[in-house]
Amino acid sequence: MEKMFLQSSDLVGVTFWLVSVAMIASTVFFLYEGLRVKSHWRLSLLVAGLVTLIAGVHYDYMRDYWVVEQTTPIVYRYIDWLITVPLLMIEFYIILRAVGASVGFGSFLRLLVGTLVMLIFGYLGEAGIMSAGLGFWIGMVGWAIIIWEIYGGEAGRAAASAETSVKSAFNAMRWIVLVGWAIYPIGYVLGYFMGGVDEGALNAVYNLADFVNKILFGLIIWYLATKDSEKDTH
Amino acid sequence: MEKMFLQSSDLVGVTFWLVSVAMIASTVFFLYEGLRVKSHWRLSLLVAGLVTLIAGVHYDYMRDYWVVEQTTPIVYRYIDWLITVPLLMIEFYIILRAVGASVGFGSFLRLLVGTLVMLIFGYLGEAGIMSAGLGFWIGMVGWAIIIWEIYGGEAGRAAASAETSVKSAFNAMRWIVLVGWAIYPIGYVLGYFMGGVDEGALNAVYNLADFVNKILFGLIIWYLATKDSEKDTH
Amino acid sequence: MEKMFLQSSDLVGVTFWLVSVAMIASTVFFLYEGLRVKSHWRLSLLVAGLVTLIAGVHYDYMRDYWVVEQTTPIVYRYIDWLITVPLLMIEFYIILRAVGASVGFGSFLRLLVGTLVMLIFGYLGEAGIMSAGLGFWIGMVGWAIIIWEIYGGEAGRAAASAETSVKSAFNAMRWIVLVGWAIYPIGYVLGYFMGGVDEGALNAVYNLADFVNKILFGLIIWYLATKDSEKDTH
Amino acid sequence: MEKMFLQSSDLVGVTFWLVSVAMIASTVFFLYEGLRVKSHWRLSLLVAGLVTLIAGVHYDYMRDYWVVEQTTPIVYRYIDWLITVPLLMIEFYIILRAVGASVGFGSFLRLLVGTLVMLIFGYLGEAGIMSAGLGFWIGMVGWAIIIWEIYGGEAGRAAASAETSVKSAFNAMRWIVLVGWAIYPIGYVLGYFMGGVDEGALNAVYNLADFVNKILFGLIIWYLATKDSEKDTH
Amino acid sequence: MEKMFLQSSDLVGVTFWLVSVAMIASTVFFLYEGLRVKSHWRLSLLVAGLVTLIAGVHYDYMRDYWVVEQTTPIVYRYIDWLITVPLLMIEFYIILRAVGASVGFGSFLRLLVGTLVMLIFGYLGEAGIMSAGLGFWIGMVGWAIIIWEIYGGEAGRAAASAETSVKSAFNAMRWIVLVGWAIYPIGYVLGYFMGGVDEGALNAVYNLADFVNKILFGLIIWYLATKDSEKDTH
Repeated sequence: MEKMFLQSSDLVGVTFWLVSVAMIASTVFFLYEGLRVKSHWRLSLLVAGLVTLIAGVHYDYMRDYWVVEQTTPIVYRYIDWLITVPLLMIEFYIILRAVGASVGFGSFLRLLVGTLVMLIFGYLGEAGIMSAGLGFWIGMVGWAIIIWEIYGGEAGRAAASAETSVKSAFNAMRWIVLVGWAIYPIGYVLGYFMGGVDEGALNAVYNLADFVNKILFGLIIWYLATKDSEKDTH
Repeated sequence: MEKMFLQSSDLVGVTFWLVSVAMIASTVFFLYEGLRVKSHWRLSLLVAGLVTLIAGVHYDYMRDYWVVEQTTPIVYRYIDWLITVPLLMIEFYIILRAVGASVGFGSFLRLLVGTLVMLIFGYLGEAGIMSAGLGFWIGMVGWAIIIWEIYGGEAGRAAASAETSVKSAFNAMRWIVLVGWAIYPIGYVLGYFMGGVDEGALNAVYNLADFVNKILFGLIIWYLATKDSEKDTH
Repeated sequence: MEKMFLQSSDLVGVTFWLVSVAMIASTVFFLYEGLRVKSHWRLSLLVAGLVTLIAGVHYDYMRDYWVVEQTTPIVYRYIDWLITVPLLMIEFYIILRAVGASVGFGSFLRLLVGTLVMLIFGYLGEAGIMSAGLGFWIGMVGWAIIIWEIYGGEAGRAAASAETSVKSAFNAMRWIVLVGWAIYPIGYVLGYFMGGVDEGALNAVYNLADFVNKILFGLIIWYLATKDSEKDTH
Repeated sequence: MEKMFLQSSDLVGVTFWLVSVAMIASTVFFLYEGLRVKSHWRLSLLVAGLVTLIAGVHYDYMRDYWVVEQTTPIVYRYIDWLITVPLLMIEFYIILRAVGASVGFGSFLRLLVGTLVMLIFGYLGEAGIMSAGLGFWIGMVGWAIIIWEIYGGEAGRAAASAETSVKSAFNAMRWIVLVGWAIYPIGYVLGYFMGGVDEGALNAVYNLADFVNKILFGLIIWYLATKDSEKDTH
Repeated sequence: MEKMFLQSSDLVGVTFWLVSVAMIASTVFFLYEGLRVKSHWRLSLLVAGLVTLIAGVHYDYMRDYWVVEQTTPIVYRYIDWLITVPLLMIEFYIILRAVGASVGFGSFLRLLVGTLVMLIFGYLGEAGIMSAGLGFWIGMVGWAIIIWEIYGGEAGRAAASAETSVKSAFNAMRWIVLVGWAIYPIGYVLGYFMGGVDEGALNAVYNLADFVNKILFGLIIWYLATKDSEKDTH
C-alpha cells in the first residue's frame, strides 16, 4: 500500500502529479468559460477542454505507473499524443475557418501526415522497435513538415489575411508548435543520447512540455477569446 | 499489478485505449454542442452522445478485459451493439421526422428485425453456440434487410423528398451503414475464416469499425447540424 | 479476477448489463431533455431521470452481485423498488396537479398503502421470512388497491377531466401499472411456483420489467412532453 | 468479497442503503430545481443540495462501514453533522435575510454555540470519552438553546414580520428542528439507556432522522420555493 | 480493511475528513453560484472553485494517507500549494484588472517570486532536505515579499483607487494573506520547533489554515460578488 503513495523524494513523480491535477482543473476551466465567450470561440475552448480532458485521463494512469514502476509510461504518452496532437491541428482550422479564411484540404492533409510521421517514428524509437536515433530523426522530419506548413504554407498565408484576434491566436499557436513542441525533442535527447537512458530527465521534460502545449496553449486561446468577446459586449 | 498496465508492445490494446478515450471525449463533445445547435438538431446530438457514452462504458471494460485476458471480449461487444445499433436506427427517424417526412411504423419494424437478426446470429457464431460460418451468413441477411430498407424502402423514399440538410445527414448515415458497417464482417472474416482464430486482427478491426460508426458518424451529424444552425443565425 | 468479468454464456448476466447501461443512458437523456421541455413537464422528466438514476446505482450492484454470486440480489431489488415505486406514484400527482386537476390527499394515501403492502409482503416472501406463496398473494392485494385507485378512484376521475396531453400521459401510466407491473408477478410465479427456485428466469423477467416500467415509461412521458412543448412553440 | 454485499436479513443495513441512495437522488433534485426557481430561493435550494451531497458522501462510507463492521460509524456521523447542522443554521439566515428581515449577528452566534455544544458533547458521550449520560444531557442543553432562539429569540421575531412564503419556510424549519431533531435523542436513548448498547436501533433511528431532517426538510423548502416562484410567473 | 476506516479517536484524521468534504461542497457551491453573479465576478468564483477542486483532490489523498500512515503527507501538501497559491495570486489580478486598475507585470513577478521562495524552501525544510529552521526562515522572506507587495507595492496602490466592491475584495484578500497565511508558520513552529516533531499538531493547524485560506476566502469573494450583483439588478 505504502508504495502506491507518492514518495516525498520522488521529484519526477511530483511533476506527474502537478500536471495531472492541473489537467483536471484546466478541463473544468475551459468547459466553464466556453459557455460564456462569443459563439465562434466556443468551439475552440471546447477543443482545448477536450485536449486537457484526454490528457487528464492519461496522466492519471501515467502518474500511477510512474509511482509503481519508476519507468517511462511510453505507451500512454503516445496514445495521448495520437489523439491530442491531431486535435491541436484541428484547432488551427477551427480558428481559421470561423472567420472565413480559405484553407484547403491539402493543407490539412500535410499537417496530418507530418503529425503521424512525428508520432509513429517517435514511438518506434522510444519503444525500442527501431533504434532511438533513427526514430528521432525521422520524427523530426514530420515536425519540420508541420512547421513549414504553418509558417510558409497555405495555412500560414490564410492566417496572414485574417482579422487581428484570429491572427494573434494563430501566431500564438505557431509559437507553441515551434517553441513549445521543441521541448519534446530536448527531452528525447536528454533521455536517450546522454549515455544510457535517463528516465527521470526524460519524463520531467515531457511533463513540462505537455503543461506548456496543452494548458498554457489553451490559456492563450482563452485569453484571446475573452478579449475578443468583451470588445463587442462593452 | 504490472500486468494491469498496458504493455507498450500490445498494439491491439493500444487501439482499445484509443477508442475508449475517444468515446469519453466524444460524449462530452456531443452533449456540449447539443446545447448550442438549433432545437430540432439537439435531439440528434443527444442520441449521438448517448451512443458514445454507452460505448465508452463498454470500452472501459473491454480494454481492461483485453489487457488482462488477451482474448476477445465478445459479450461486452454484443451488449454494446444491442443498445447502440437500435439507437442508430432511431437516429434515422429523429432526423426524418423532425422535418415532417412521413415514415411509417412498418419501416421501423423492418429495420429493427434486420438489426436483431444481424446481431443475434453474429453473437451465436462468435460465442461458439452456432458455427462461425452459419452465424455469419444469417447475420449478413439481417444487414441486407437494413440496407434494402434505407436505400430502396420507405425510409429511403421519405428522405429523398426532405430538405437539403436532412438529405445530407440521411445520405451520410446511409454511407455509414453501407461502408462503415462493412468493416465488421471484414473483421469477422479476418478473425475466423483465415485459418484459426486471429483475436488481434478481429479486435483491431472491430475497434476501427466502432470508431467510424459511432464517432465519425456523430461528427458528420454534428457538422451538418452546425452548418444548418449557422445558416439561420447569420 | 477473471470471474469478475461477465461470461459470454451468462445470458441472465447479459440482461443485467443491458438494463444497467440503459439506466445510465436514460438518466442522461431525461435530465438533458428536461432542460428543454415546457416548464410544467420539466419536473416529470426530472422525476423520470431520478428513477433511472436510482435504478442505475442499484443495477450496478446487482450486476456485480449476479456475476459473482449467480443468485438473486433480492435485497438490492427491493431497496430499489422501495424508492422508485413511490416516485412513480408521485409522478401521477405531478402530472395531474400541474394542470390543476383536484386530487385529494386520501387518494395519495391509498396509493402509498397499496405500494407498501405490495413491496413489503413481496420482500417477506422472497427473502424466505414468510412462505413465498403467502407473501405473493398479500402483495397482489396491494397491487389491486393501486389499480382500483387509478382506474376507478379519485385519481382516475381527476384525470378524466384533464386536457388531452395530460390524459394521454395518465393513460400511459395506467397501462404501465396494469400491464408493465404485471411482469413482476409473472417473474415471481416463474421463479418460485414452477418447482424449485429458478433464479435465472426470475431475474431475467424482473430485469425486463424494470426496463419497461422505468425506461419505456419515462420515454412515454418524454414523448408526450415533447409533443406538448412543440405544439406551443410552433 | 461476499461479505461486502449487503445481506438480505440486515434490515439496519437496508436503512443505510435507502438513505444513502436517497441522498444522491436528492442532491440531483435540489441542484436541478435550483436552476428554475426565483432567484432569491436559488441559494436555499443550493444549500439544501449541499447538505444532501455532504450526507451522501458520508452515507456511502457509513453504509460500507456498517456492512463490514456491523457497528456504529460514530465518527462519520458526527463529521457529517458538524458540517450539515451549521449549514441548516445558515439556511435560516438565507431565508430571513433574502426578504430583508433584520437578524443580528448575536442571534447567529447563539445558534452556533448551541449547535457546537449539542454536537461536541453528543460525540464525547457516544465515543466513550465521557459517560454517555453526561454527554447526552449537556448536548440537550445545546439543543434547548437553539429552540429558544428560533421560537422566542431574535430570529423568531424577525420571521414573524416576514412575508407569507418566508414565514411558511421558517415555520417548517422550526418544526424540523423541534420535531425532526427530537428523533436523534430518541435514538440515543434507545441505543444507550435501554440496558447495554443496541447498535441496530440506534442506527436505524439516526438514519430515519437524517432522512427527515435533510431530505424532507429540503423538500419543504423546495415546495415553498416552487409555489412562490409560480405565483409570480403566472 | 478495518484500518482504512477512520478511527473515532483519531481527531487529526477528523480534521482531514472535515476539510476534505468541505472542499467538495465548496467546489459545487462556487461553480454553481458563478453562473449567477455579474459577469466580471464570474471568473473570480470559477478560480475560487478551481482552488477548492484542486485542494479536494489532494485532501482525498492526504486523508487516506493520514488514516493509513499517521504521518504528514508532506508531498501532497506542497503539490497542492504549488498550484493553489499561484492561483490566489492570479485571483488578485482578476479582481484588480476587471475594473481597469493598472497593475504591471513587475508586480506579478514579485508576487510569483515571493510565492515560489516561500513554498520551495518550506518544502526543503519539511522534507528534511535542508534543516527545518533554515528552510523556515528563508520561506518567511518569501512571505514578507508578498505582504510588502500587496500592502505597500504597486498592487496595493492600484487597489486603493478602485471602486468600493473591488476594494473590499482586495482588502479581504490582503487580510487572508496576512492573517490566514500566518497560520501555516504557526503550524510549522508547533510541529518542528517544540522539541521533536509533533505530526498531529502540525497537520491539524495546516488543515485549519487551508480551510480559512481556501474556503472562507472564497466565501468572502462570493459574498462581495453577490452584494455587487444584487445592487444592479434591484
